[in-house]
Amino acid sequence: MSKKTEPARPAARLPKGLFDISSGEVRATEEMLRTIRRVFESYGFEPLDTPAIEYSDALGKFLPDQDRPNEGVFSFKDDDGQWLSLRYDLTAPLARYVAENYQTLPKPFRRYQVGPVWRNEKPGPGRFRQFMQFDADTVGASSVAADAELCMLAADTLEALGVLRGQYVVKVNNRKVLDGVLEKAGIAHPEANPVQHFAVMRAIDKLDRLGVDGVRALLGKGRKDESGDFTKGAELGPKQIEAILNCIELRSDGRGQTLSALRGLVSGSQTGEQGIAELTEMDALFSGASFDMDRVALDPSVVRGLEYYTGPVFEADLLAPITDDKGQPIRLGSVVSGGRYDGLIERFTGEKVPATGVSIGVSRLLFGLQRLGKYQMSPAQGPVVVLVLDRDRIAGYQKMAQELRSAGIRAEIYLGEAGMKAQMKYADRRGSPCVVIQGGDELAKGEVTIKDLIEGAERAKEITGNVAWREERPGQFTVPASEMVAAVRQVLSRHKS
Amino acid sequence: MSKKTEPARPAARLPKGLFDISSGEVRATEEMLRTIRRVFESYGFEPLDTPAIEYSDALGKFLPDQDRPNEGVFSFKDDDGQWLSLRYDLTAPLARYVAENYQTLPKPFRRYQVGPVWRNEKPGPGRFRQFMQFDADTVGASSVAADAELCMLAADTLEALGVLRGQYVVKVNNRKVLDGVLEKAGIAHPEANPVQHFAVMRAIDKLDRLGVDGVRALLGKGRKDESGDFTKGAELGPKQIEAILNCIELRSDGRGQTLSALRGLVSGSQTGEQGIAELTEMDALFSGASFDMDRVALDPSVVRGLEYYTGPVFEADLLAPITDDKGQPIRLGSVVSGGRYDGLIERFTGEKVPATGVSIGVSRLLFGLQRLGKYQMSPAQGPVVVLVLDRDRIAGYQKMAQELRSAGIRAEIYLGEAGMKAQMKYADRRGSPCVVIQGGDELAKGEVTIKDLIEGAERAKEITGNVAWREERPGQFTVPASEMVAAVRQVLSRHKS
Repeated sequence: MSKKTEPARPAARLPKGLFDISSGEVRATEEMLRTIRRVFESYGFEPLDTPAIEYSDALGKFLPDQDRPNEGVFSFKDDDGQWLSLRYDLTAPLARYVAENYQTLPKPFRRYQVGPVWRNEKPGPGRFRQFMQFDADTVGASSVAADAELCMLAADTLEALGVLRGQYVVKVNNRKVLDGVLEKAGIAHPEANPVQHFAVMRAIDKLDRLGVDGVRALLGKGRKDESGDFTKGAELGPKQIEAILNCIELRSDGRGQTLSALRGLVSGSQTGEQGIAELTEMDALFSGASFDMDRVALDPSVVRGLEYYTGPVFEADLLAPITDDKGQPIRLGSVVSGGRYDGLIERFTGEKVPATGVSIGVSRLLFGLQRLGKYQMSPAQGPVVVLVLDRDRIAGYQKMAQELRSAGIRAEIYLGEAGMKAQMKYADRRGSPCVVIQGGDELAKGEVTIKDLIEGAERAKEITGNVAWREERPGQFTVPASEMVAAVRQVLSRHKS
Repeated sequence: MSKKTEPARPAARLPKGLFDISSGEVRATEEMLRTIRRVFESYGFEPLDTPAIEYSDALGKFLPDQDRPNEGVFSFKDDDGQWLSLRYDLTAPLARYVAENYQTLPKPFRRYQVGPVWRNEKPGPGRFRQFMQFDADTVGASSVAADAELCMLAADTLEALGVLRGQYVVKVNNRKVLDGVLEKAGIAHPEANPVQHFAVMRAIDKLDRLGVDGVRALLGKGRKDESGDFTKGAELGPKQIEAILNCIELRSDGRGQTLSALRGLVSGSQTGEQGIAELTEMDALFSGASFDMDRVALDPSVVRGLEYYTGPVFEADLLAPITDDKGQPIRLGSVVSGGRYDGLIERFTGEKVPATGVSIGVSRLLFGLQRLGKYQMSPAQGPVVVLVLDRDRIAGYQKMAQELRSAGIRAEIYLGEAGMKAQMKYADRRGSPCVVIQGGDELAKGEVTIKDLIEGAERAKEITGNVAWREERPGQFTVPASEMVAAVRQVLSRHKS
């Protein structure tokens, strides 16, 4: 270590919004990813992986938080002065990949990708600056059958992960319907006033968090939040605002009823009517595949915050109430989100390439599932620990661990410097089912002692007094060294989880 | 999309040194990771995950390429002005994690971690700026039994991945032996002249790439490479250089012989003799566990480029010659590397915490394995494709795909706009085993047609002439719609890979 250039001692800490993931959560995540992968594969999607770093201009800026331009993304300059960014989702890199390889890809191109994404968010509870997404996209299919399929994929995936029917809902909408409502209310066309249009979309997207009054303020003059920060509004007039609220507050008893009501709101707007036609086609596909309203609902308030969506948009929420450790309710937000983005590849090529995708928020979903009592993060069974009683015989202990491993048993020797008592404590900490002991006595007789830690702990509760303890030595027995593997196996089979 | 703020069309390309990973390689990597995870778990290591971004000062600067200070790492400033970096390995984040959580961890602490790391390297063939590592570390164990175990873990992992005995070797050395040689040659103590010391280490580390003459130049005045760039040398005298070359060029018939020869080279240096004692203990552990010289060798030229190593260092190479597509030999470099870094946690806490670790270069190893004919990236079998002949009946086709999926068969409907011929071509491109066809005729009779694409392609080679083709319709048959799943299953069982 070059002491001269090393500054004073660095603090051992992580930047805000970034977190370590413990062994239990890593295992639970792995299990989730295996399940998601299986469902996505069953739908015919193929894996792809792209690097974390891309050219900033290739990713573009489509994040919802436009109040803070130039933020939201981690960026830095390459040696040649070009700007690089960490990907903020898996969709923008896919668009770059498809544009770069369009000629050689099968069309439609259907891929899934899993990996971390990064957002340079304001700090706050539940705001992560790195989190994992699992996406599936179909590129080159303009039919909303592709969108409908992704909604069904989302429902099937949630159920495969153990979310029961009734514990979740996939909510579907179409941005064209909203555009029709805006058009009829005399609000400027999205392309004529994109800034206002996205201010409207962002306002609606906050219905869940801010309620109707918050959205009303954001559609009008603007809104001051609890911290006193003022967010400028979309500057719509009262009638325009009511038209929008009428639409997004629409509630009904089923998809057909929602469609009828929406049809009335947009009649006469070509864009709006196209949106209704698309939703109607999706509704028929859902019904045809028996995805009824207990799984897939139409919800006119769904718009999604990302700028690049052009048609169908959808999200999935967990319906069961989620609470924190103190029993306080937590607003989890959507665990799945997606939509159609027909303009994203055109950015590169100038040619329209229809595309639609869905994204599972793996980290958020795992948190929600755990709160619902699924994917518990109880530590896996630890390794069998071979105690080291005589440091000169460490090669012999190592060989015993090796024998156990060869028999398919997770095993390690104790590698620290401490004595027997601390070694036992270490094995307990590791969740070991048993330890293997060979002191001088056992060695002389060609024996090993196995101590069943789980049974030992249970029996210990019943035994009082040190003398009784020493005499009984609960869960402990001695066998010929040649029978070590069989004896350990027996202990393990007793405690199969 | 906010057209007004969008600049001219961005180019769809990746920054140099960054690459997309195709479906075959993603699948092969997944398979590798599963195997490595299984072996690491069997040794008792527990998973941990840390974020990609850390405070720059917490990671420190230990990369080999000190010729370019401030480079090697991707860094950027946080909102509060503090420097952040993308991790360049998984060891520095582990040191931060252990220092941060020392009180609550079991000791020794044994963890594995897998993930991408980033290096801001000069561009060049085989130089990746993102690659995947799979690490195991034991923290809190000063005994070289921990180092020896990692060498055995490396050998066991390579064999579990299909590398045969004789196709790889784990090479072990100890930096203290080299320090002893330097001490006896009158070269300044590492702490007295760290710059020179690391110049010497880096020079030796290049033996494999530059040969003896290159190392000799780098130990002396310096060396000009093919591009004309001059690297300043360590400025040693001729006798000092010869002493080092004597040591690192040592060849022998076995570990015992190497130890004897090294013992002679360092006798009288306390550091050197300690290094020999440690190597001797590791040798005994290898022999005791039957890891003979066909798997683990002592190699005095192994130093590893990272600055933080303090004692045992080791690496594993594939021995079989690796060639590129044109048959030209490729210098693959080590696929596994590791060593002891007793000072890395002390950086934070001021207290010595012994630690040792091993790192598998997953991306590089996969490349090597594929060159050796393992982990072939032939695409997996594609999904069964249900053709869409009548767009008005897409719900029905969707239902057929759903039926196949419910039966555990990978299936999708064709989601594009093209006609039947293009749909068949698409299924071919996807590697589909068969397609399911239901036109108006089949629908009327309650039937479906299955076309076996693999048999079809084979039979087609034998048939000449369009008439014969149309008459024979190779690999195609019609069944009642209710028997679709069974019929597809039959085709799949014919082509089980």
